Amino acid sequence: MRLLVANDLDDSILRKHDVGPWAERMLWFARDGDTVVLMREPDTDFLREVIAVTGTDPSTLAIHVLPEGRHGRRMFDHHALISDDVVDCVARTLGPVESVHSQWPSPYVAEFARRLGLSNVLGGAAVYSQNAVEVLNSMGTFRVLAAAAGVPTAAGGVCRSPGDAVELTTRLLHTYGTLMVKKAHAGAGAGNLVVTTSDAPGAAGTGHAARFQVDDTSVADFWEERWAWASADGRFPVVVERLVDDPRSVYAEFLVTDHAAEHAATGELFFEAGVLVREEIPAPDLPAGVEERVRTEGHRLAELYRTLGHRGFLSVDTVVNRGGEVFVTEVNAQSTGSSHLHAVIRERAQADGGASRVVAQMSSPADWAVVDTAWFLRRVGEAGLGYSSRTGTGVLPATPAIPVGHGAIVYVVVGRDTAEVTASMHRLASVVQDHQALDA
Amino acid sequence: MRLLVANDLDDSILRKHDVGPWAERMLWFARDGDTVVLMREPDTDFLREVIAVTGTDPSTLAIHVLPEGRHGRRMFDHHALISDDVVDCVARTLGPVESVHSQWPSPYVAEFARRLGLSNVLGGAAVYSQNAVEVLNSMGTFRVLAAAAGVPTAAGGVCRSPGDAVELTTRLLHTYGTLMVKKAHAGAGAGNLVVTTSDAPGAAGTGHAARFQVDDTSVADFWEERWAWASADGRFPVVVERLVDDPRSVYAEFLVTDHAAEHAATGELFFEAGVLVREEIPAPDLPAGVEERVRTEGHRLAELYRTLGHRGFLSVDTVVNRGGEVFVTEVNAQSTGSSHLHAVIRERAQADGGASRVVAQMSSPADWAVVDTAWFLRRVGEAGLGYSSRTGTGVLPATPAIPVGHGAIVYVVVGRDTAEVTASMHRLASVVQDHQALDA
Repeated sequence: MRLLVANDLDDSILRKHDVGPWAERMLWFARDGDTVVLMREPDTDFLREVIAVTGTDPSTLAIHVLPEGRHGRRMFDHHALISDDVVDCVARTLGPVESVHSQWPSPYVAEFARRLGLSNVLGGAAVYSQNAVEVLNSMGTFRVLAAAAGVPTAAGGVCRSPGDAVELTTRLLHTYGTLMVKKAHAGAGAGNLVVTTSDAPGAAGTGHAARFQVDDTSVADFWEERWAWASADGRFPVVVERLVDDPRSVYAEFLVTDHAAEHAATGELFFEAGVLVREEIPAPDLPAGVEERVRTEGHRLAELYRTLGHRGFLSVDTVVNRGGEVFVTEVNAQSTGSSHLHAVIRERAQADGGASRVVAQMSSPADWAVVDTAWFLRRVGEAGLGYSSRTGTGVLPATPAIPVGHGAIVYVVVGRDTAEVTASMHRLASVVQDHQALDA
Repeated sequence: MRLLVANDLDDSILRKHDVGPWAERMLWFARDGDTVVLMREPDTDFLREVIAVTGTDPSTLAIHVLPEGRHGRRMFDHHALISDDVVDCVARTLGPVESVHSQWPSPYVAEFARRLGLSNVLGGAAVYSQNAVEVLNSMGTFRVLAAAAGVPTAAGGVCRSPGDAVELTTRLLHTYGTLMVKKAHAGAGAGNLVVTTSDAPGAAGTGHAARFQVDDTSVADFWEERWAWASADGRFPVVVERLVDDPRSVYAEFLVTDHAAEHAATGELFFEAGVLVREEIPAPDLPAGVEERVRTEGHRLAELYRTLGHRGFLSVDTVVNRGGEVFVTEVNAQSTGSSHLHAVIRERAQADGGASRVVAQMSSPADWAVVDTAWFLRRVGEAGLGYSSRTGTGVLPATPAIPVGHGAIVYVVVGRDTAEVTASMHRLASVVQDHQALDA
């Protein structure tokens, strides 16, 4: 059996609003006999759909739900994880454990494993007990490690003070005109700002939260207003780097073990108006040589992170410019938002379908009202897109329904190729729109 | 020729009061033809004494003094270093440069070298341009890298929030009773606090600024009062670890090159009432096997820092308990307060004396009034302890006089063995006391 901790970021890194549904994607990894620690009661419709695909027997799963904790179930409470009650309760149900896994290698997961006598089967326990998760997931440290590994990054630097930021921004603007400012810890472009001397629009295809026009006289004002946000009140460094024009966002994900960093998948992120709207594995139609370059540079970094003690999934993000040049932009040393896509869903679909499969993941559009997971599954059924173990294609929930706005969900479309995936996306959207029109 | 930047910490890391004299120790490294960038006019008595020992011809040195800058010459102004005026002025006097050196591998030194077209002869330029100096000199990152290298450290962890600190302190106090709290960036114990459940005195032989008695009910209060100080207002992580009882503080210093991490010296720090009072190279009379263990563990870390791109001097600090167990406590990836001792002064003394030499370094006692460097050199002369190139023994200033209190200085005593060093220390102290008694 394995012990799975369905956690998310430490609250010392980033405060989030409601990670419960997102953290629950860990259920995709559950196999017969596993013990799973969740931050809330699982969504039964979601769990039923997941195990229908993975073939896991739910009667063999031990699911522990944490007490409500300090965050009212809005974030994973790592202090609750190591409370005597939880440790004792989990210990009582454990048989021999072959490995411990989490989605975010928090020092509290390392302490949890230690108290259960399982440090030796938690990959990376030595470094993660020392809060390596911050170091190995920081945009700032990343640029140091990328330089050490000799992989290409966009011209730029790492700031530790507003003075650093003014100096570096001024200098880089003179040379490049348009820059990206990046928080050390944030996801999918939400921690990025575009800063430019140009009044032309641009950068729509990259992840970023806002765009600012500045010049030499206003750089200091920009940082006076933005340093606290960018540095999380001075707690983390801030990256400033050249914006790569009109890029494709390609990532390579690896599985890092004691012996190797094995390539697992190459995917692509798609942004509209600065916001991540979809990702797809494999990255479709890359120019000749690009996939290999992404994989090669990624592997060099993955090996360095392996030397630094990381174990488990690791994603290397890059941007690729129109000339096919690859610039590495970040490393996520954690189980990412893509890990279940390739390691579980695509594996399963290819085993079922007997051939290569394309998987795409996206959030439901803002005009969908996903009232609950069952609502979503009914629409999928009406569209005739329920996952088929005969063809290894169809639509699946990546997470349970998310109670944000009118209700949302993250879902996955599996097809034989990108065209089939796109057709399925459109068909589902059409069914949802028809349904909502009837409801209105 | 070489380009030497006699700098000190970035102001984004730590604010210091007056580093000018301390930074000037870089003059010990100056060789014929070198260019040296100083933050203030050099102390001529100090410079004369230094070059009398090193044999450097002062007429071949090009010395650039930075403009007063943002810190009024109290700290090294790295923004001034990369100002157009300074870069242009230095560029005009440079011949072919074989290497660039600094005492603190600031990102601004990397930018200075880049603007002079000298990135390729600045060791570690790739990572230090990305602010690796913070990462590679942080107590917090150190514990991650030590775990990755598999070297022994005292039981403990790294905190990123007051909540982390309360949890970890409580847990470790239950097991160990007495702990050390460490700031990520500070020197020679000034960033350490002893926290203990015991009301017995102790820990005098370790570097620390204060000692606090706490229990389960007061740990949270302790951190409410101390977190801002310990974390530099939340900007850096805080280490909490078991206090090693009654230790010896032994360090190994290495010179890290593109090809190897070569052991340069093993020394020892001596503390009284928590304050560093003396260091000595080599560490005297270590128990069998201890020097080799310190060197071996140090070498593993030095090799890891080499992989991470560090070049130049690197010091690995350890504490050794009465049983001879070695615990690594910190790495300084910079030219340290010991580098000139072994790499210049001891080398020179051994060449002059033709045999092994012991070097000790200490600050003048608080009751000395070192009004200027010449005053100090006169007392050394009166004691008959001026450095002799015939014997390779004597007393030397490590720095110019330091205008703190009644006036201080850091100085070096070189002898054939520890007994001769101790005798010279006492003789000089006696002469100073007699002189001051006459003056009074």
